Amino acid sequence: MGNTRNLAAAESLFVILFLFCICGTHVSAYTKYNTGAGVVEGKLNVHLVAHSHDDVGWLKTVDQYYVGSNNIIQGACVENVLDSVIWSLQKDPNRKFIFGEMAFFHRWWVEQSPHTQEQVRKLVDAGQLEFVNGGWSMHDEATCHYIDMIDQTTLGHRFIKKEFNTTPRAGWQIDPFGHSSVQGYLLGAELGFDSVHFARIDYQDRAKRKDDKSLEVIWRGSKTFGSSAQIFANTFPIHYGAPTGFNFELSNDIVPLQDDPLLFDTNVEQRVNDFINASITQANVTRTNHIMWTMGDDFSYRFAETWFRQMDKLIHYVNKDGRVNALYSTPSLYTNAKNAANQSWPLKTDDYFPYADGPNAYWTGFFTSRPALKRYVRMLSGYYLAARQLEFFAGNRSTIYNTFALGDALGIAQHHDAVSGTAQQHTTDDYAKRLAIGSTKAEAVVSSSLACLTGKKSGDHCSAPASAFSQCQLLNISYCPPTEDNIPEAKDLVVVVYNSLGWNRTDIVRIPVNDANLVVKDSSGNNLEVQYVDVDNVTTNLRNLYVKAYLGVSPKQAPKYWLLFQVSIPPLGWSTYFISKGAGKSTRRKGVMSHLNSKTGGNIDIGPGNLKMSFSSISGQLNRMYNTRTGVNIPIQQSYFWYASSNGGDDGFDSSDGQASGAYIFRPSKSSPNIVSRSVSFKVIRGPLVDEVRQKFSPWIYQVTRLYKGKEHAEIEFTVGPIPSDDGVGKEVITRMTTNMVTNKEFYTDSNGRDFLKRVRDHREDWPLQVNQPVAGNYYPINLGIYTKDKKSELSVLVDRATGGSSINDGEVELMLHRRILQDDGRGVEEPLDEDVCVTENSNCEGLTVRGNYYVSIDNVGAGSRWRRTTGQEIYSPLLLAFTHENAENWKSSHLTKGTVIDSNYSLPPNVALITLQELEGGSVLLRLAHLYEPSEDAQYSTLAKVELKKLFPTKTIKELKEVSLSANQEKSEMKKMTWNVEGDKKGQEPQPVKGGPVSTSDFIVQLGPMEIRTFLLKF
Amino acid sequence: MGNTRNLAAAESLFVILFLFCICGTHVSAYTKYNTGAGVVEGKLNVHLVAHSHDDVGWLKTVDQYYVGSNNIIQGACVENVLDSVIWSLQKDPNRKFIFGEMAFFHRWWVEQSPHTQEQVRKLVDAGQLEFVNGGWSMHDEATCHYIDMIDQTTLGHRFIKKEFNTTPRAGWQIDPFGHSSVQGYLLGAELGFDSVHFARIDYQDRAKRKDDKSLEVIWRGSKTFGSSAQIFANTFPIHYGAPTGFNFELSNDIVPLQDDPLLFDTNVEQRVNDFINASITQANVTRTNHIMWTMGDDFSYRFAETWFRQMDKLIHYVNKDGRVNALYSTPSLYTNAKNAANQSWPLKTDDYFPYADGPNAYWTGFFTSRPALKRYVRMLSGYYLAARQLEFFAGNRSTIYNTFALGDALGIAQHHDAVSGTAQQHTTDDYAKRLAIGSTKAEAVVSSSLACLTGKKSGDHCSAPASAFSQCQLLNISYCPPTEDNIPEAKDLVVVVYNSLGWNRTDIVRIPVNDANLVVKDSSGNNLEVQYVDVDNVTTNLRNLYVKAYLGVSPKQAPKYWLLFQVSIPPLGWSTYFISKGAGKSTRRKGVMSHLNSKTGGNIDIGPGNLKMSFSSISGQLNRMYNTRTGVNIPIQQSYFWYASSNGGDDGFDSSDGQASGAYIFRPSKSSPNIVSRSVSFKVIRGPLVDEVRQKFSPWIYQVTRLYKGKEHAEIEFTVGPIPSDDGVGKEVITRMTTNMVTNKEFYTDSNGRDFLKRVRDHREDWPLQVNQPVAGNYYPINLGIYTKDKKSELSVLVDRATGGSSINDGEVELMLHRRILQDDGRGVEEPLDEDVCVTENSNCEGLTVRGNYYVSIDNVGAGSRWRRTTGQEIYSPLLLAFTHENAENWKSSHLTKGTVIDSNYSLPPNVALITLQELEGGSVLLRLAHLYEPSEDAQYSTLAKVELKKLFPTKTIKELKEVSLSANQEKSEMKKMTWNVEGDKKGQEPQPVKGGPVSTSDFIVQLGPMEIRTFLLKF
Repeated sequence: MGNTRNLAAAESLFVILFLFCICGTHVSAYTKYNTGAGVVEGKLNVHLVAHSHDDVGWLKTVDQYYVGSNNIIQGACVENVLDSVIWSLQKDPNRKFIFGEMAFFHRWWVEQSPHTQEQVRKLVDAGQLEFVNGGWSMHDEATCHYIDMIDQTTLGHRFIKKEFNTTPRAGWQIDPFGHSSVQGYLLGAELGFDSVHFARIDYQDRAKRKDDKSLEVIWRGSKTFGSSAQIFANTFPIHYGAPTGFNFELSNDIVPLQDDPLLFDTNVEQRVNDFINASITQANVTRTNHIMWTMGDDFSYRFAETWFRQMDKLIHYVNKDGRVNALYSTPSLYTNAKNAANQSWPLKTDDYFPYADGPNAYWTGFFTSRPALKRYVRMLSGYYLAARQLEFFAGNRSTIYNTFALGDALGIAQHHDAVSGTAQQHTTDDYAKRLAIGSTKAEAVVSSSLACLTGKKSGDHCSAPASAFSQCQLLNISYCPPTEDNIPEAKDLVVVVYNSLGWNRTDIVRIPVNDANLVVKDSSGNNLEVQYVDVDNVTTNLRNLYVKAYLGVSPKQAPKYWLLFQVSIPPLGWSTYFISKGAGKSTRRKGVMSHLNSKTGGNIDIGPGNLKMSFSSISGQLNRMYNTRTGVNIPIQQSYFWYASSNGGDDGFDSSDGQASGAYIFRPSKSSPNIVSRSVSFKVIRGPLVDEVRQKFSPWIYQVTRLYKGKEHAEIEFTVGPIPSDDGVGKEVITRMTTNMVTNKEFYTDSNGRDFLKRVRDHREDWPLQVNQPVAGNYYPINLGIYTKDKKSELSVLVDRATGGSSINDGEVELMLHRRILQDDGRGVEEPLDEDVCVTENSNCEGLTVRGNYYVSIDNVGAGSRWRRTTGQEIYSPLLLAFTHENAENWKSSHLTKGTVIDSNYSLPPNVALITLQELEGGSVLLRLAHLYEPSEDAQYSTLAKVELKKLFPTKTIKELKEVSLSANQEKSEMKKMTWNVEGDKKGQEPQPVKGGPVSTSDFIVQLGPMEIRTFLLKF
Repeated sequence: MGNTRNLAAAESLFVILFLFCICGTHVSAYTKYNTGAGVVEGKLNVHLVAHSHDDVGWLKTVDQYYVGSNNIIQGACVENVLDSVIWSLQKDPNRKFIFGEMAFFHRWWVEQSPHTQEQVRKLVDAGQLEFVNGGWSMHDEATCHYIDMIDQTTLGHRFIKKEFNTTPRAGWQIDPFGHSSVQGYLLGAELGFDSVHFARIDYQDRAKRKDDKSLEVIWRGSKTFGSSAQIFANTFPIHYGAPTGFNFELSNDIVPLQDDPLLFDTNVEQRVNDFINASITQANVTRTNHIMWTMGDDFSYRFAETWFRQMDKLIHYVNKDGRVNALYSTPSLYTNAKNAANQSWPLKTDDYFPYADGPNAYWTGFFTSRPALKRYVRMLSGYYLAARQLEFFAGNRSTIYNTFALGDALGIAQHHDAVSGTAQQHTTDDYAKRLAIGSTKAEAVVSSSLACLTGKKSGDHCSAPASAFSQCQLLNISYCPPTEDNIPEAKDLVVVVYNSLGWNRTDIVRIPVNDANLVVKDSSGNNLEVQYVDVDNVTTNLRNLYVKAYLGVSPKQAPKYWLLFQVSIPPLGWSTYFISKGAGKSTRRKGVMSHLNSKTGGNIDIGPGNLKMSFSSISGQLNRMYNTRTGVNIPIQQSYFWYASSNGGDDGFDSSDGQASGAYIFRPSKSSPNIVSRSVSFKVIRGPLVDEVRQKFSPWIYQVTRLYKGKEHAEIEFTVGPIPSDDGVGKEVITRMTTNMVTNKEFYTDSNGRDFLKRVRDHREDWPLQVNQPVAGNYYPINLGIYTKDKKSELSVLVDRATGGSSINDGEVELMLHRRILQDDGRGVEEPLDEDVCVTENSNCEGLTVRGNYYVSIDNVGAGSRWRRTTGQEIYSPLLLAFTHENAENWKSSHLTKGTVIDSNYSLPPNVALITLQELEGGSVLLRLAHLYEPSEDAQYSTLAKVELKKLFPTKTIKELKEVSLSANQEKSEMKKMTWNVEGDKKGQEPQPVKGGPVSTSDFIVQLGPMEIRTFLLKF
């Protein structure tokens, strides 16, 4: 037979032959990689920081992310991350990993065996597992209130302290969409953090900082505290992912380092060169010989070994090569190295807002996105504060009904894709569900605590039923069964009103009723003046739809009237009101039905007090506001507009770059918004307690302006929605107030509800701004308020939730109230921000209607601060109403109808707020006091304040008082601060901030300087 | 101020309230799951068998799969699987996992630390990690030669034995596309396996077996050995994946069992019910109270904990529920349970070919797919056998040059997506590259060994240079530099010819030369008769393209002639031939230039010996074959056809179900193939050693028929390609021989080159076949040959590689030789089978041309076997040619020109083949002898044969001889066999096969009964 050989579709035999001869003598075998490198002086040190960015909900819910369900949306499972990381860390004591989100870690921790917990404790002790940030979530920085930020951080930090006896040292805000002053100085330096690390700053800012190596700065976010609350802030040069080619997540198309000569594709030299090239690129924009590689990404480390295996090899071979030094590191080790270097750093003040990642991509839409969720979070934030007070005061902390679930839910809700409004709809629903569960539990605490506090027989271990009182979360849409219902024979409607502020408080209460012949008596039995106001159709319609949609029940006939009466409540105290049926018919009633005005031509002035608002009876529009006491008098228009959302196409304004407006990004298709209507129908209601102007701007915008007796501001209730979308155009609805004030492009917005920062239109302090988006690029986040001023007056607006706002033209202030958008903006959420409300059984859906309030004040220049600070507290902490039915006399015989837990002659100074009072596990009590004013903000109040703890706790003896860090995880006296050289600093020239001194254990008087927040752990 | 409450886009508060009250009192905590269940009598036992199906190359190369690179094609990383499985197994001693592919495990093992290796050994000892199958790969069952199957299994089994001192007990052929008799009885029972498990059988077969609960059978694959080589065969009811909803791979959209009351979506009851429902469904098609769940899928367990975490919980809660019993199990434990049940099992004989998974989806295309690769594998298989012989004989086993790399490459190439031709192109290239590397190493072994063997001075530790001889892999396209080159002055071309068969062998050698005036002398100095044949243009063109494409070098001018001469080589021996230039011009040459015939009309008979072939001088077509010695005389036509590949659309033949022909599936668009040409150009060459008929059927089909002196068969060399595809039609090219034999639908094909099985067209033994694909459904795999017969004659065809073939009409035999297809068949490979060959530098590509041989014999009925068996061995083990240049006299003075390592008067009996002779690590020698005949196959040869080992190893003393299992991992005497009740069995009535008795250590004579293979470990 002949020779039969084949023709194989193979590679070059010759090439193979040579390859083979080179590598054929190697024998593959176990290699122990040398991973133990530390910092090496004189070399470029590449700090490999292994991390997994685990959103506490986004495309999936927090639990779905944890257990790894719903992977069809996103392949992510935090349980896998933690399981596998722990294993990988144990394999090599040089490996390190950082973790931040305690909402996840806590879920994992409680499910572990004692053995595993012990192992993890060892890893933490050894510095292999380092907690960074350490809050419950990586909170947003634009739409969170500072009290929420503190609370959620405290939740995490105390968990870490308790389980691991350690304190995080580094802020790790890698993903939030811009960075706030409050984050830098308060939720940074005041936590004891040496550093904060993040990825997202304006693209123009970043470009300049890369040019002049100023990505890393010393950030002094507080005008008040300056260098005493500074922090080393590290902005990543690209993003928080690993450098290109070094993301080793198991599902990625990775290029593994291959050093086994028995396998094909060995590439040690290539990978080492890749590493060094990427290192040098980064070193070229970084000061000192230290660069950080963020080795991780969203939900990576699902199987941690894929990362550590590669990092082991890279460290081994790169260090063998010797050109640079690679090491396992953490943000705190990195910061140590930066601090040890003899280097001056650029100074950064103010904040990093707004954030844009491209010329037409300003992330200023999320300041307003999902306004209902934002309000729900803010409402429960104030409620959580009050509930913890009551829980402590009543001394009935219970394992079944406590405030943990609400704290947990709020902690989760502060996540930068939660309250920010940038999660998917189903995840948003999950946040709301968690908040609802938490608030239900907290309501039980409040109810039971109030029963204990008001009950005469209550002792230290009072345990009243959790259902002692009813409360009404949906009061704003007139849904409150205990007040709507007929008052049973021989009983009264008992209303206990609790005031969680440290000051006595007088306010108008409004409750829905069906009887216009009611008698309201105060705790002393005095009849009160009442006012009835008709419930309008808009509210009735909302009530019918939303009660059905949210509670799953069809509400009864809507109530006819709002009953208003004025209450006065002691600080941290309560007062009881008794409402009974009038004895006869309407002739006997003391209440006054409101008067209705119709249009009569000319201007109509309203306001029962000093503040007057003047409306055109022709157009129905606001013309002017003036205060008869102060003499401030400002011509002012107010109306509603909407920006058409860019759909990303060429819509005649910007060039077509595909960037649509969406949950994150605000991109109007043109700069000028469309006015909703030039004339509005309106109705005026006057009465002894309130004047109301009801205006219908369109079928989907309704507004009620209220001027209350005894208040010098306007409360404006807006009802916006369903925003029409039939025309295929997304709409971003604003209210705009226009005055003739000469404001020179300047306006002021708060930082997380705390400091006010000056904003200058079309301007940034840190670089010459190239203006691409004249509207979106001038929006700023608002949590407390916005104001502008000229030489004579101030115009201040306070908000009831996180809101975006600006002053687009001099003399103007605008707030974005609601957004309905039909496109996605391409930042991952992959849903248009098109919220609706549905009644499940008939699948009847319509666009979401949002109702809320903002508050307007006009003041002489320099005088607005006092209103903003005080009213801001009142908005954050509304009066808490609890209802029951009981015979008034019976009630009085067994209850204290009015009282306070503090010394009855004491109240907090007007410039101090009690921002936390909470009993902790083990019986110690967390107390946080905050000075409300910045230096020079108010002539009288921007001064050192004093709080007498003995009068706050008159019935208790303080056995121990420890001043602690903001998150109560370390003693203040033990906190160390790094010193840094800052460019331009002149030693000793910086003014020292006024701060309170040590607390004497004899008088227990706490002093607070302007803007100071002091945190204490007390034992009684 | 008024009451400001929000409208949150939330869930029903009421619903939440109730939910909360139910679950609120639970506290989540660590749960120790009870995973320790064993089999429970009286309950349905669900055996969870955790596995990862890790293809040894498919969409990615074996190394890419191992390290996890190229994940863009497929997210798969076997290193992750093994790393994470080991960790998960250590977490709970009840967890179990099985692993099969030693090509992967070996890669992993050598990289582990001694500590990890020790841990793994403990897991194996504890039964937590069980090796199943245990070969280097999960070999294909249609396209592998049994010697390759044995070799690759031995490679894996001996590795397992060496490292773990254990022997696999279960066959795990879950993915191969149909199952062969040889697999069942030889690579199953004879390995000591109790069971074999697989997924793929014909869809009609499966449906019937589900109906009558006969998925699980006792399989007696051997007609010869019957029950003595039976195995429990378990066909899965659906596929080898986990039941729907129970695939827990981390990237899947899994529904995790959630039992933590603090997390949402707890679903214990639902998941338990899901589990039980799926169990019952399977129990309904399964005998006994034991069902197996194959918990895994392709490359799953990338992070094993995702699976074990869920299985832990399922076992815990399902067993708590108590309706069924779930347990961690393995195929061997499952088989134990099946065996322990008092149950009779259906009997299965023959094989499971062909496989179809739908009416138009016969997986019979891969029998032929990638014929070049198939030939390359087969060629190297024979070479590997020879190389190991020489390595042993020369006693120069070296760490640098040894046959391991070729054994490794061949082991990988047996994978069911490798030699099957169903891998992607780049993976196929990788297989070829590995084979090329392996063969290069083996060539060095052969060269060095031959030098030692032939060198007179060689001692025990001869170490001749690896380059002592040249060899020519591309001889079939006339590329052989040592023979083409001018013979240097004063030197001769020395040709050493090695015969790896156990018999003396006479053959014609052909080498390409440029000089037509050469003298060939044998080892004794006798001048030999030579014949020169012109090298044809087709070969020259192939040579120019393919040498460039494969070797990256431009070959010199193509040689002009083939020089032929007859050689005669002793068994397991060599002979040397000396070729020198003729002293003068062509007048002096002894060789005879061939005569060329042109067409002259009438028939042309060719053949220098007894076999004659008669061609029409008009059409150029074969008319008749006859043998003047035996008198067999058969009218026969032979021509080429192509089936048009279905493109899956409605192409007028089958209904449009989208099923295209592809790498796996053969689906012709109509039953009748297209003839390539009705008349062919042809040329006849006659000479003393060979007559050739050269026929050009088309520009892309060329054929040379050769009838050699001393041979009674025709060797037909086909050259097919590039198959034209400009018309957009895929083509599957066949050669068809048509006779007038009355064959009654019956024909015979081999099982992996070993047993012959009777095939009946349009018929299956096990069920009434519904014929949907009258062509594709009658194709069978061929590795040795196909024959058909009538009452008078047999027509036999042997192949040089794995090939698909059939007899579509009585009297016909056809072979599919090459396929070029433009669609993918939707079974995952996602590439059309459209091979090409490219010259890299100019990116010049054309469709792949395939050249090969088949061999045709006509015999009297009953007499064909001897030819098939003997010639089959010769095809598998061609003569090995090694070349060098040296002066003949010098050579003779220092070399043995002819010799054998066995007793020079001994040869193996003609019915026995030496299928393995290999020196193992540690100096023991593996010897495998195979009887070549089935009982009654040949009157003379189907008898007990004897091999005298002393004469095989005349220079050595056998110190120890152990008969071992087929894979040499256990002593034959220690192998246990399970007994099974089989339906219809009548005790004692089955004929006992003839088998050889124990080997006496005095005479060392090995007896072999028909079909018997005996394996020994020897020590000298």
